Formats: sequence, C-alpha cells, structure tokens
Amino acid sequence: MLKIPGLIDPHVHIREPGATHKEDWDTATAAALAGGITMLLAMPNTNPAIFDASTLELALAAAKAKAHCDYAQFIGAGPGNAEVAAQLAPRAAGLKMYLDSTFGELRLDDMSLWKPHFEKYPKNLPLVVHSESRSMAAAILFAAIYDRPVHIAHISLKEEVLLIKAAKEHGLKVTCEVCPQHLFLTKDDIPSFSGGHPGRGEVRPRLGSKEDVDALWANLDVIDCFASDHAPHTLEEKDSDEPPPGFPGVETTLALLLTAVHEARLTIDQIIEKMHTNPKRIFRLPEQPETWVEVDEQATYEIHAVDMQSRCGWTPFEGRQVKGRVTRVVLRGKDVFKDGKLLVEKGFGRNVR
Amino acid sequence: MLKIPGLIDPHVHIREPGATHKEDWDTATAAALAGGITMLLAMPNTNPAIFDASTLELALAAAKAKAHCDYAQFIGAGPGNAEVAAQLAPRAAGLKMYLDSTFGELRLDDMSLWKPHFEKYPKNLPLVVHSESRSMAAAILFAAIYDRPVHIAHISLKEEVLLIKAAKEHGLKVTCEVCPQHLFLTKDDIPSFSGGHPGRGEVRPRLGSKEDVDALWANLDVIDCFASDHAPHTLEEKDSDEPPPGFPGVETTLALLLTAVHEARLTIDQIIEKMHTNPKRIFRLPEQPETWVEVDEQATYEIHAVDMQSRCGWTPFEGRQVKGRVTRVVLRGKDVFKDGKLLVEKGFGRNVR
Repeated sequence: MLKIPGLIDPHVHIREPGATHKEDWDTATAAALAGGITMLLAMPNTNPAIFDASTLELALAAAKAKAHCDYAQFIGAGPGNAEVAAQLAPRAAGLKMYLDSTFGELRLDDMSLWKPHFEKYPKNLPLVVHSESRSMAAAILFAAIYDRPVHIAHISLKEEVLLIKAAKEHGLKVTCEVCPQHLFLTKDDIPSFSGGHPGRGEVRPRLGSKEDVDALWANLDVIDCFASDHAPHTLEEKDSDEPPPGFPGVETTLALLLTAVHEARLTIDQIIEKMHTNPKRIFRLPEQPETWVEVDEQATYEIHAVDMQSRCGWTPFEGRQVKGRVTRVVLRGKDVFKDGKLLVEKGFGRNVR
Repeated sequence: MLKIPGLIDPHVHIREPGATHKEDWDTATAAALAGGITMLLAMPNTNPAIFDASTLELALAAAKAKAHCDYAQFIGAGPGNAEVAAQLAPRAAGLKMYLDSTFGELRLDDMSLWKPHFEKYPKNLPLVVHSESRSMAAAILFAAIYDRPVHIAHISLKEEVLLIKAAKEHGLKVTCEVCPQHLFLTKDDIPSFSGGHPGRGEVRPRLGSKEDVDALWANLDVIDCFASDHAPHTLEEKDSDEPPPGFPGVETTLALLLTAVHEARLTIDQIIEKMHTNPKRIFRLPEQPETWVEVDEQATYEIHAVDMQSRCGWTPFEGRQVKGRVTRVVLRGKDVFKDGKLLVEKGFGRNVR
C-alpha cells in the first residue's frame, strides 16, 4: 500500500455552465477524487465562457453547490477583458489564453491582442496558454518581453519540448505540462481504440507521432506537470459527423502513470513532483491539510468506462490493462473516496482562491 | 537634381539558375541600376536552390559573368546543411531561412530544424528569416535564446511591426524590412490592378489590410530597411491556373518612395537610412567608392512595364503616377545608367563578399 499526497490537476474541463449533459461540477469532481485528484483547476471555455465578474460568479456558484474536491476557476482572455481579468485575478485559478483556437469571447487570433494580457495580468499569478508549435514559441517570446512567467498547456510535440528545454536553459520563465494521451498514445493508435469511429481520436493538441512521444519521455525533466486536460464529450457527440475534440482523463491519468512506474519508465517521486509539488508551486496553490491518497500498487485491472464517475461514458483507454489502483482518498481529514465508492456530498469541495 | 548614395536592396530574386525565362543576372541587375540600386543581395530559392558549395558556385559563376551591379548571394538553410552553411558564410550574403514555406532542400517545417542554424551560423553575419506572424515571433525567440541577431524579411502585418517594436524596446537583436507593395497597396487594391487576373495579386506575404498598411506607416521608426522582394514571374505564369506568388519591384521601389516624400509621408533622409545606411550596417556590406544616384525629384510620369529592364514584363503598379526619376547612376566611378539607358556591360558587377 502506497500513500501519496493529494494530487493536483491543473487542466480540467468541467462543462458547467452550458453542457452539463457531458459533465458538471458534481460528476467531474467525483471523477477527480476517483482518480486520486483532490484539487483541480477548471478551464474557462464553458458556455458562456468565464471572462468577467458575472460569468466567474456563475461558475463559482455551481462549483460551490456541487464540487466534491477542492478547485479554482480560470478566467479566459478575450480581446477586450485584460483590465477586468487582472482585477479578478485574486479570485481566479489564473488566466487562460487560447492562442490556437478561435471561438467567441476568447478569440485572440491577432498577436496584438495578447499584449494587454501579458502586461496587465499580475506577474505572481498563473498565465496559461493553449499554444501549439510556433504559437507556443510566440507565447514564450511574449513572456520574455513582458518579463513574466508563462505556463504552456499540454505540450505534445518533439519541437515543443526541445524548445522549452532550450528556453529554460536560457533562463526564461516557462513551465509546461503534458497529458497522458500524449505520453501513452500515438496517432497510429487511433484505429485500434476508436472502433471505427474516427471522431473518438479527435483531440487538441492532436495525438503525436512515435517520435514526438519518445521525445516527451526522453525529456521528462523538462516537463513540470502532468495534467489530464479532461475534456468529456458523450459518445454520441464523438461519433457524430462533427466530433468535438477531447478525451476524458481525470480518472485514468494516475493509473496509467503508475503502470509506467512498474515498467520502470517513471518513478513515484516523479509523479508526486509533477502532480503535487510542481503544480502547487507554479499555480501558487495552498497546502491541503490532512489530505492524501492510498494506492494499491499491485492491483492489476482493465480500464472500463462503465466503472467511472464521469458522465461522458467512454475513454480512449477502454480495455487497457493497468497496474495501480486508488483505494482511498482523504481530503481535509475526511474519507472522500474508498474502495470504488464516493463518500462525500456535493459542496464539500472548497474554492482554494 | 538630388544626389543620393547608391542604394542597397537586400531582398532580390534573380531566378538564375533555373528560371531565366523570368529573369537572370543580366536583366535583374540592369533593372536594379535603373531603380537606383547599386548593390543587391540575391535570394537562394532558385532551381537548384543555393545551399552548398557547388550550388553557391553555380550562382556566383552566373553572377560574375552577367551582373551589372554589385551583389552577394544568400545561402538557404535546409534540414541538413547547418555545418556547411556556416563554413560557407564568409562567401555568402547571409543565411536565409524559409520558415513559412515548404519546398525542396530549404524545407524547415519543424522548429527542431532551426536550432543548428541559429547555433552555428556566425553571429556577426546576417541571418534572415521569411517568417510571418507567429513564425516571426518564434524566430525572434530563437534569436533571443541563441543570442544572435536576426533580420525579419518583408514584414506586412500590424501585429508584426508592433511585436518587433516591443522586442526592440526589450533589447532583443532584431531588425526588419518592409516592401513597397506592403506600403503602397492593400488587398482591396487587387481587383483594380489585376485586371480580372487574380493571380497578379498573389504575393507572399499577402497584401495586408488598410489597418496593416497604416500600422507600418505609423511605425516607420521600427522599420530598418526598405527591400523590394523583387520576385519576377511572367504574365503568362501570373495569369495561369496556378499563379506563382511574387511581384517585380526593383525598378519601382525608389520612385514610389520619392512620391511619398512629395506627399510628406517620408523624408529623403529616411530613404537613405533605410536603403543605404541601415542595410550596409545590418548586412555588413562594404562601402562602394565613387558611387551615387542622381534623381530628378520633379519628374512626374506613369509607371509602365514596357519601359523597364526586367524580363518579366509587368508590374502591379502599371499606370500609377509617380514623382521622382533616376536620371544617372554612377558605380565605382563609372556611369552605369543615364537617361533611361544602361551603359555598362555584363560582368561589371562585383561580388561584395
């Protein structure tokens, strides 16, 4: 039996407000606890997007009523809200900038729109970017010019990890996270796990090549955090003509990483570093007192969506054999998850900001 | 009568070797002199591309035999020639990296391929990038990380000039050039100058919006050089189903800029700074002794391709009224162009490296 600190997932899509048929603060935070995650940071691209005081209030009210685990809520950067976002910063997980997507209030396709956010968001609070490839390099340049830290979400490419390595060696204030799908799947795996439904392989960033995956594993020391980028959609949506990108992940991340420990690709200390120590430092999160996770390291089983807390009802890791099971989660002195059962009411989770 | 120094165009596509039906070292350098340009730097994306000792020799042999004005030849960066390019650096105008195009030997679509060039090319010799928008930001980041200067070719966007301004203010070693088409045309002008042949509007970078053009004019102090990006194609090619991008420019750049001086948008000193002083410094070019250009500032006339030295036979500025005509060009003590006539033989031009 292994005892580790409560894990922190800095990248979770809750889907509430706006798409609670996929997931909500209840099911997402229950799933997090089942995965050994006692604190999560929620992304702002909900419907409506979280980008001002009233939308932040909307998300926080739902979270307060329903969350089982602790949490904080990101604000999204838009073309006109740099001032407002900076004012709301003390109440937010951080600022999330979508630099490669183009939707609604969070659309930032012109780099001229980035400047006020890099300038104004408090330098001691987290600024996180969805930025792939050259956009990622551009984001690091902005961080250098405006002399503030930046955290790169879900890196997936060899060129990304190598450039972050070089940027860190040069002393630039950049940190990054990687998701389990970019460590444990390649684009060549899509046919086998998608069961003839290619939409199940859609995720952003896309699954990489074997060369990309190998480069991430070869540069684990460059990677600060493991994050799930839990992005639930229903199977009906994934199998539709316009499948939305995203995989669920909050319940499977730890089991996949523990399996890699058995395969001697990773150590328990690295899991703790990248899922507790580093995210706590990077995102300036408080200690959770009397909080830990117990793991049966020897438990071998298959991943099945039917066993999960998430509402979305599928996983790209369906049927994969893993070794290492969360048996008990204690959050602030209370047994919140034990032997596969959620033991805590909605509303127990606290806003850590 | 105005007397100005011999002008330097750091961005010219000669088309030789490989496409001499569009232009060659004879016609391109004759056209340069007609435009008041006494020294030009030739781009390496010829056929074959100039990327090693034997292809450099090929270009330099053609130049030596045919050039009317002084010149140097760029080497192109490819996935495997960083070592060779660095060795050849003393004989080359500089290193040209195509970061937004993907063709043949000069294809660099993965940022991992950029690193050896930024590391190895001599820091005191020019490294020029074709890099638009976020790729441009990425190139500036590479220059920062590998602590060397970088010159950004043909900027065209508001976001580009504003980011270069911020990068310069932060102390990063970045310089840039802008082309006449991005100062004097917008994308909305294409229907009127293309005469129903949209291929004549194809150029890379594309023509910008009025907002982009206005931002370039509003930030002239950020712009180090004016460069033509002379990129001749025949009208038959431009009007084909797959029109190649590019405008001729070496003969019209100065006249357009002199016209802007009459309109009080620019000064003669800025022209000399950005077409002589700055390129000489940035590209480490030698002084051309006894070399100058005489201009009739009051001469008003229409631009017509039929009057030009270039082989390509068209211009996007056809019919435009300009004010300011090159009447005499003296290169190293010799009258090389006077009253519309080329007075110098092929082979007079010298390799300045």
